[in-house]
Amino acid sequence: MKMQKGAFMRGTDHMVLKEIPVPEVGEKEVLVSLEYVGICGSDVHYFHSGNCGAYKVDLSEDFMLGHECAGTVVEVGAGVEDLKVGDRVALEPGITCGKCEACKSGHYNLCPDVVFLATPPVQGCNEEYIAFPADMCFKLPENVSTKEGALIEPLSVGFYAAEQGAVNTGDTVIILGAGCIGLVTLLACKAHGAGQIIVADLVDARLEKAMELGATAVVNSGKEDIFEKVQELTGGRGFDVVFETAGSAVTIAQTPFFVRRGGTITLVGISAQEEINYNFAQIMDKEATIKSVFRYKNIYPKAIAAVAGGAIDVKNIVTHEFDLEHIQEAYEEAVNNKTDLVKAVIKVK
Amino acid sequence: MKMQKGAFMRGTDHMVLKEIPVPEVGEKEVLVSLEYVGICGSDVHYFHSGNCGAYKVDLSEDFMLGHECAGTVVEVGAGVEDLKVGDRVALEPGITCGKCEACKSGHYNLCPDVVFLATPPVQGCNEEYIAFPADMCFKLPENVSTKEGALIEPLSVGFYAAEQGAVNTGDTVIILGAGCIGLVTLLACKAHGAGQIIVADLVDARLEKAMELGATAVVNSGKEDIFEKVQELTGGRGFDVVFETAGSAVTIAQTPFFVRRGGTITLVGISAQEEINYNFAQIMDKEATIKSVFRYKNIYPKAIAAVAGGAIDVKNIVTHEFDLEHIQEAYEEAVNNKTDLVKAVIKVK
Amino acid sequence: MKMQKGAFMRGTDHMVLKEIPVPEVGEKEVLVSLEYVGICGSDVHYFHSGNCGAYKVDLSEDFMLGHECAGTVVEVGAGVEDLKVGDRVALEPGITCGKCEACKSGHYNLCPDVVFLATPPVQGCNEEYIAFPADMCFKLPENVSTKEGALIEPLSVGFYAAEQGAVNTGDTVIILGAGCIGLVTLLACKAHGAGQIIVADLVDARLEKAMELGATAVVNSGKEDIFEKVQELTGGRGFDVVFETAGSAVTIAQTPFFVRRGGTITLVGISAQEEINYNFAQIMDKEATIKSVFRYKNIYPKAIAAVAGGAIDVKNIVTHEFDLEHIQEAYEEAVNNKTDLVKAVIKVK
Amino acid sequence: MKMQKGAFMRGTDHMVLKEIPVPEVGEKEVLVSLEYVGICGSDVHYFHSGNCGAYKVDLSEDFMLGHECAGTVVEVGAGVEDLKVGDRVALEPGITCGKCEACKSGHYNLCPDVVFLATPPVQGCNEEYIAFPADMCFKLPENVSTKEGALIEPLSVGFYAAEQGAVNTGDTVIILGAGCIGLVTLLACKAHGAGQIIVADLVDARLEKAMELGATAVVNSGKEDIFEKVQELTGGRGFDVVFETAGSAVTIAQTPFFVRRGGTITLVGISAQEEINYNFAQIMDKEATIKSVFRYKNIYPKAIAAVAGGAIDVKNIVTHEFDLEHIQEAYEEAVNNKTDLVKAVIKVK
Repeated sequence: MKMQKGAFMRGTDHMVLKEIPVPEVGEKEVLVSLEYVGICGSDVHYFHSGNCGAYKVDLSEDFMLGHECAGTVVEVGAGVEDLKVGDRVALEPGITCGKCEACKSGHYNLCPDVVFLATPPVQGCNEEYIAFPADMCFKLPENVSTKEGALIEPLSVGFYAAEQGAVNTGDTVIILGAGCIGLVTLLACKAHGAGQIIVADLVDARLEKAMELGATAVVNSGKEDIFEKVQELTGGRGFDVVFETAGSAVTIAQTPFFVRRGGTITLVGISAQEEINYNFAQIMDKEATIKSVFRYKNIYPKAIAAVAGGAIDVKNIVTHEFDLEHIQEAYEEAVNNKTDLVKAVIKVK
Repeated sequence: MKMQKGAFMRGTDHMVLKEIPVPEVGEKEVLVSLEYVGICGSDVHYFHSGNCGAYKVDLSEDFMLGHECAGTVVEVGAGVEDLKVGDRVALEPGITCGKCEACKSGHYNLCPDVVFLATPPVQGCNEEYIAFPADMCFKLPENVSTKEGALIEPLSVGFYAAEQGAVNTGDTVIILGAGCIGLVTLLACKAHGAGQIIVADLVDARLEKAMELGATAVVNSGKEDIFEKVQELTGGRGFDVVFETAGSAVTIAQTPFFVRRGGTITLVGISAQEEINYNFAQIMDKEATIKSVFRYKNIYPKAIAAVAGGAIDVKNIVTHEFDLEHIQEAYEEAVNNKTDLVKAVIKVK
Repeated sequence: MKMQKGAFMRGTDHMVLKEIPVPEVGEKEVLVSLEYVGICGSDVHYFHSGNCGAYKVDLSEDFMLGHECAGTVVEVGAGVEDLKVGDRVALEPGITCGKCEACKSGHYNLCPDVVFLATPPVQGCNEEYIAFPADMCFKLPENVSTKEGALIEPLSVGFYAAEQGAVNTGDTVIILGAGCIGLVTLLACKAHGAGQIIVADLVDARLEKAMELGATAVVNSGKEDIFEKVQELTGGRGFDVVFETAGSAVTIAQTPFFVRRGGTITLVGISAQEEINYNFAQIMDKEATIKSVFRYKNIYPKAIAAVAGGAIDVKNIVTHEFDLEHIQEAYEEAVNNKTDLVKAVIKVK
Repeated sequence: MKMQKGAFMRGTDHMVLKEIPVPEVGEKEVLVSLEYVGICGSDVHYFHSGNCGAYKVDLSEDFMLGHECAGTVVEVGAGVEDLKVGDRVALEPGITCGKCEACKSGHYNLCPDVVFLATPPVQGCNEEYIAFPADMCFKLPENVSTKEGALIEPLSVGFYAAEQGAVNTGDTVIILGAGCIGLVTLLACKAHGAGQIIVADLVDARLEKAMELGATAVVNSGKEDIFEKVQELTGGRGFDVVFETAGSAVTIAQTPFFVRRGGTITLVGISAQEEINYNFAQIMDKEATIKSVFRYKNIYPKAIAAVAGGAIDVKNIVTHEFDLEHIQEAYEEAVNNKTDLVKAVIKVK
């Protein structure tokens, strides 16, 4: 039996590396030698507190985190037609049933039977090899690296946010929050042809990153009156699309005031606070639409095409890189660095 | 100069009938001899309190209410091609600019320069004759009466709600509130082919009306646990579309719990309370969409066609009818009768 | 081993009844005791000529026709949760892969790996029992019979045509062809709230059926000038939606002239003639949209809801009924009766 | 009375410059000092043959061509609020009624009462000054020149084609024809985030221009087998969106073979030949959609935003520039140069 290294959390704030078997490849699966795995905000929550939203890690057992990954196909199952050994692929980490009402109607992100990597009790991919359904492995073009491939997962959240917000060429948008999800939303808005793209946050380092990635202007809402600023930047009209990516009650409550009449608010960030005091009078008066985002669906091919086409430079969101041996340090940094860490990735090999 | 009778509010809770000139007909206008004018909830608010939402009647002057009306064309302007004397028409009461971004893109209900009957300071149509732009007068087919014609206005709110909610054939819907707007939403859902249509309210008389108009089932949410009832009626799935027509903070706050995953909430009722505590965690987890309704647009032809085709019986929502001489009594009844009055109309002649 | 009767075509124009095994039920399957199986135009083509479009029956072996069916669940596989013995169900006859781009995006009707009953070499369901995936068996409400259940398949073509044509409440439509597909399109348009519904055909008996099923008016295009008639019926405006269900070069070529500016043509009928001389100048000048229909997707639940809700009476399209023993006679009648046969069904038991 | 120079065609193939009055500015109009006017294919048709499609110039009188223009506001009418003297603007040349069904529903390009510059008998804008409705004059940002402003009109055709084709980020597209409309469609596809963009034509110079403007690959369909090439470039899948901009019967007839299953064909080019032999069997089998393009609607703001944002470089399509005095030479060149002239513009001042 071939063996590989895998990283597991053992209790909170603690990673161990273990020797585990390389999995057998199923009939419609491929075996992928992983090269990069990203660290997502949810991974950090599980690592530090043992849970994320309603999901809890069973701390009595080792648990493998990681769901943003890419690598090279090293073996293909007997029934696989579209991939071959040597193909470099990005993995879409949610395996859905294909049979339910949600799946059949194209909304597979809402499949109640989804098996999603690193969402307990499903193990993640902080390891060297994974066997995965071939239809969830998306081939990367020559000019897209596996590091970029691992970033397709968070980028897909941004792309799906832009799609839910129906961002159209020339639209004016504001993105509340300049963390990883805010920044991929920015990249996605660029790829969708948005015109004016404003990004707001409290941390200057993040806003600098936003400018670097193509924001038209930024607002530090801790230092400036963002309400006045929105008036000024839009000539009193408001934005075509408002993205909330910070998941804070404060920014969610701002959204009705920033959207134009007939515009769309897209909620991406998940708030720890279930109920929020919200000005529906503004919503009604403006006939605004509120859309929300749950993971993504049918996005990988378009996100990969956008990266390959050069419209956006996704690898630029990575601020920190660690190898698998230093995964403890990587996760600690992700927990503690609230200023200049935007995105950390693990280089597996 | 030809004279006519017109009814005006003089201070709150008080109507006077005055002799006023019959207006001249403009080049692209028709003169309509009005036959029925409905009493809308907004009319009742102005009459009793002097204001409705942000709009206030200048109580130092007489003010004419009424914006739901139909009648017969008695004169046509020189530039009118599509209407002739004798045509019976329903009037769409909001005249928009046709030039702004909202108008050009088909969202004329959001035109900032709209002139809307009986929205202060614009006078209404509680009178015998009105000169009105021909393009806002919709011809009624032979089998649609002018009484039904006057009801096209509130019915259009229901139709637009169904359209904003994207009600599709076979959809399951719940309508919160069984006042006039709740009931026209019910009729519109029927006309759009909805399957299961549940109506909830606190007043049994209204729920009986809802059953009479075609609801599949009703819930008295004062007597039954509506959360349990929704679970039971939908097998735990929730509704494809949830309509909020009551405008109460309680029912608005219920909407995230009643919608299915991937479903749509449509806000129609306007709450007196600007901010409402709202469970966005449910919205995010279900990837629900929230739509809202501001008046309506491009609805009259389809609403008239639905009435003409017999799919719905709109005149059945009328519970009280008064002639113009008894308009004081009519408005008083509309203010005071909170049980069996659903819709009152004024028969002008 | 339990045995059942199954009807097979043996060469063209010839049916035999054989004793065949009742199939084993798979883990996610149910065993359905069939009660009604419809005879589709494609069945008739295979029976009489051995092929339908590009598909050919291998005439060296017996082949079972039939794909429109409904019955009662008599056994459930171990992994089936949503159905139980005694449930009456309509079967959606195309089993798709759930993994390809088409399936994942909700367009499963375009799945290249579909397995569709009675499309060679896949056997059909002219038999007493079928084992079928539970997720393709749709439960019928109490007030929908299994005879109506067997008609859900053709009705779904009509519903999907209405959906592709985006028929909206109050829309004016014309349906070219009053065969089975024309008539189910008519029923679907009614269920979607269409206003004026005109049906055109060359056979008076079919047009009478169309009137009986709810057409607003009919045109015998062999006896009347249909171009003049369309002008007259629409006041020169043309129809919001034009459905072509006859599949003839003549009627396909008429469509650009019958649609209004900005309207939609929906092609449903399949022409034997691959290329057709078509007036694209009209299409461009009117900025018309042309949509087409390949089977259907995500329609069964809404079609069943519409039948259950009473909006349409689908069983009325059945003009001929035979029992399984007389299937030879049934298919002969379907081949030969070009006048008053609209739809024939086999009563299995 | 202030006078200006205006260029008129006097008979075919002949331009004269005349002194004409500078128009008075109406209440809601602005007076624009024109700086650039483009020469459109329709202008060339009128100039050389006296007609374009169904429209004919009355050759017994002088007629002014030109409808693609931009300049600087030099006077504003009393009722104009959004523009001021000194603003640089691009003019949208079709003035619509704002009252008809098409206008109210946002499809103003289909307004039957449109007044469109240089569509006989409406005079064009080959002159120094034009008085024009303020709501049809779109302000140019600082970094967009009036030369680019004059190109917004043809660019809008491309943007509208992309919109009708619903081009989405990452989509693969083919554009048949690399004339001006083909090239603006290419630019629009880029601005909408398209992935692979293939352009086909018979003229190498045009294909080189296409590569320069951002095509992924080009096909000279006179030298290569375009059917084979499409198979090769798309791995047998076909394109998400096929644009026909050449208006030739040959290329229109190719479209069903190049589109993928479930894809969209968008017809932009207008054929001299009304009827075309078209393979509807392919359309039906692929469930393809055919959209068409009649001018454009609600596009100027987004096209201007795309140019301002730097996503596309529209001024690069201009190959020839002339001043107003040399308009005869300019139009002659546009008639005769079938190789390297893509787009000519007149510099008015």
